[in-house]
Amino acid sequence: MKLVIVGCGAAGATAAQFARKQDRRAEIIILEKGPHPQYSKCALPWVISGELSPEDTIEFSQEWFDKANIDLRLNTEVTDIDFDGKTVHTDEGIETYDALILATGATPFSPVEIEGDAFFLRTLEDAAAIKKRAAPGATAVVVGAGLIGLEAAEALHELDVEVTVIEFLPNLLLNMVDDDVARVVQRGMPEGITFYFDTKVTALTAGSPMQVAVERDGDRETITADFVLVATGNRPNVELAGQHADKAIPVDERCRTDIPDVYAVGDCTRYKDVAGSDVIVGLGSTAVRQAVVAGQNAVGCDATMPPLLNARTTRLFDMEIAAVGPTSKEMPFSPVTGTFTGSTLPDYMAGEKLLVKVLADDSGRLMGAQAVGPGAAQHINRFAVAIQHSLTLEQFTDVETAYAPLVAPVFDASTVACNIAHRRVR
Amino acid sequence: MKLVIVGCGAAGATAAQFARKQDRRAEIIILEKGPHPQYSKCALPWVISGELSPEDTIEFSQEWFDKANIDLRLNTEVTDIDFDGKTVHTDEGIETYDALILATGATPFSPVEIEGDAFFLRTLEDAAAIKKRAAPGATAVVVGAGLIGLEAAEALHELDVEVTVIEFLPNLLLNMVDDDVARVVQRGMPEGITFYFDTKVTALTAGSPMQVAVERDGDRETITADFVLVATGNRPNVELAGQHADKAIPVDERCRTDIPDVYAVGDCTRYKDVAGSDVIVGLGSTAVRQAVVAGQNAVGCDATMPPLLNARTTRLFDMEIAAVGPTSKEMPFSPVTGTFTGSTLPDYMAGEKLLVKVLADDSGRLMGAQAVGPGAAQHINRFAVAIQHSLTLEQFTDVETAYAPLVAPVFDASTVACNIAHRRVR
Repeated sequence: MKLVIVGCGAAGATAAQFARKQDRRAEIIILEKGPHPQYSKCALPWVISGELSPEDTIEFSQEWFDKANIDLRLNTEVTDIDFDGKTVHTDEGIETYDALILATGATPFSPVEIEGDAFFLRTLEDAAAIKKRAAPGATAVVVGAGLIGLEAAEALHELDVEVTVIEFLPNLLLNMVDDDVARVVQRGMPEGITFYFDTKVTALTAGSPMQVAVERDGDRETITADFVLVATGNRPNVELAGQHADKAIPVDERCRTDIPDVYAVGDCTRYKDVAGSDVIVGLGSTAVRQAVVAGQNAVGCDATMPPLLNARTTRLFDMEIAAVGPTSKEMPFSPVTGTFTGSTLPDYMAGEKLLVKVLADDSGRLMGAQAVGPGAAQHINRFAVAIQHSLTLEQFTDVETAYAPLVAPVFDASTVACNIAHRRVR
Repeated sequence: MKLVIVGCGAAGATAAQFARKQDRRAEIIILEKGPHPQYSKCALPWVISGELSPEDTIEFSQEWFDKANIDLRLNTEVTDIDFDGKTVHTDEGIETYDALILATGATPFSPVEIEGDAFFLRTLEDAAAIKKRAAPGATAVVVGAGLIGLEAAEALHELDVEVTVIEFLPNLLLNMVDDDVARVVQRGMPEGITFYFDTKVTALTAGSPMQVAVERDGDRETITADFVLVATGNRPNVELAGQHADKAIPVDERCRTDIPDVYAVGDCTRYKDVAGSDVIVGLGSTAVRQAVVAGQNAVGCDATMPPLLNARTTRLFDMEIAAVGPTSKEMPFSPVTGTFTGSTLPDYMAGEKLLVKVLADDSGRLMGAQAVGPGAAQHINRFAVAIQHSLTLEQFTDVETAYAPLVAPVFDASTVACNIAHRRVR
């Protein structure tokens, strides 16, 4: 049994780990075009801030691969794959395989030509280059107010860089939460960061300073900055899959592609979600869960995974934000919603504010939830259980929650939000 | 429609609230033998510590009842009820009813005769009396290392009272968690508190100081203290229910007793739990959930509640402890368990320790969970959803959780604990 894995990000490395767990004797080779063993891409903003060193981000070290008897080949680019002949061509030679796992990841894209001191944030090298430019008092433009853009903006802000964030959409994090929830998050942003919403970047011009041409409501303006971070999203790396992919590589619940003995995992794939849509995988946590399945199946197991919930979270300026399921705009119908801002503690104790918004279909079935405040992610994890098992709003409110003066109120914000939505269904 | 409610604790007051929500015109009378409108009994330890004033603990004030047009009669004791004649006899006179809700609560009991400076902690008066004795440097014995005993012990410890806790069972919180989990909690107790486990209090003798006679392994000893708090549990107040109750008043999923038009809620009742046992209701959160059901049903609705999960939590010395479902000892069979202590954050970030123990039956169905550490209650709330809907360990681990560097790891302690238990089922 010979397993070849293309790519050693979180998906590729985890697939190797779980293949090895199931099969002690399989030959496992990972072909990685970059120079590092597996590190956490999600951790890169904290490499910029200096909270983490590049070494801190390593999750599977060279020593780990050696000990697991996994042949990790760095700086090795796969140039072509012959799926009929079951061979992988690299710049170093040819490898045959019995099973192949594509974990080729994704590549950042920019709406405009990148030049001069404009950076992406996808690799340790990117983080190092940005860190080098992030001197106190420097100015930076961050293009894109999504997760990565804002996490990086916070890191730069902490380094006393003057940050301007430019977003094409009307608010921040709109791929994560609804407009109204985004507005609450926006109010938590520090005054030191300037936001431009509904604003399109039309050109980047290299120079000292960099020139960022923007357009808003037909008005044109040029913003200058010492450097620019473009965080407008990623595109799946699908070239090696050829005709077996479109914008991403489609996979099934066993992480199989439509090619015999070929699996795909992580950011290069698309997979069905709980609402029945086919979505591009963009979360590290999903990549890892796919890798657990694909790694086992590649060596002869029969593991499966449920449709995606896309449970997601971040912490920005000490504010926890989390969501699960599609946002209102991503749903094929107008959802029934319930929103409640409650205290994390009973009324007689001084708690903190927690906002919860729930989304349901018109039968009252829970479809999604969004939360901002302490414990937001844990509330979302509770909704994830309910959504995956098709519970209704009423069934959710019927479930007890733990109450104590210093811990939680009898009816917490999640329960009350569901109750509000439930009354609208009735 | 005339509704009479006996008792104005959390259960009685909430029942009145929800009856009023459903029926604006019903005559609603609450007969309360004590002098206060509804206050939180759970908050009493913080009245001792001074974090809360007695007024802070009021949840439903006299003004609230007036505004809701609910006739709250304080200092009014019910002496007898004629269920056939549908009349309630009080020391003030007689009231007829169309529907009656018994919310008579429970009374602390002591294994030994109470005398001298020995107190219970069930009322605002109790809290005030204890607070008065809790001078810095004073010594106190707390009998019982359950929730109330330990919350009170912490309050006294914060006031620089020298506290000794005496527990009949081999560890603390054994009505809440398993032995092994209790040991972890015990390690978090401060050195300033002395614990005696496996120790029986055989007599209390009034005096200055108080004498507490104890017996452990056949050895007898006398411990002295300026005052004593007895926190060895409560007994349901069932007298008014007569032959319709045993150790508690049995109720069904509509909070009905076996008497026509008579409901019962809160600490005076017993109800089925998710494992099929009949258990005495002892949680404020359960009392409130019953009251919502009974209040509505008393005025003509048809609300129901699911079996009890007994989701419970506390925070002791900055340690959050929570559990749901029966403990191992309370289960009718030896459960399959999985225990894991993980970090609250990914490995590359500095997180805190979180312990999770899960209990399942031999088919892998989740039956209970216990947690110690930051977010313990939220993890337990997630298990509550799973347990109420009969999910298996594998179904639980299959549910996504939200991951981010500053929020949570990809596989959190709850998921890993289930995975460990699942492998034992296989």
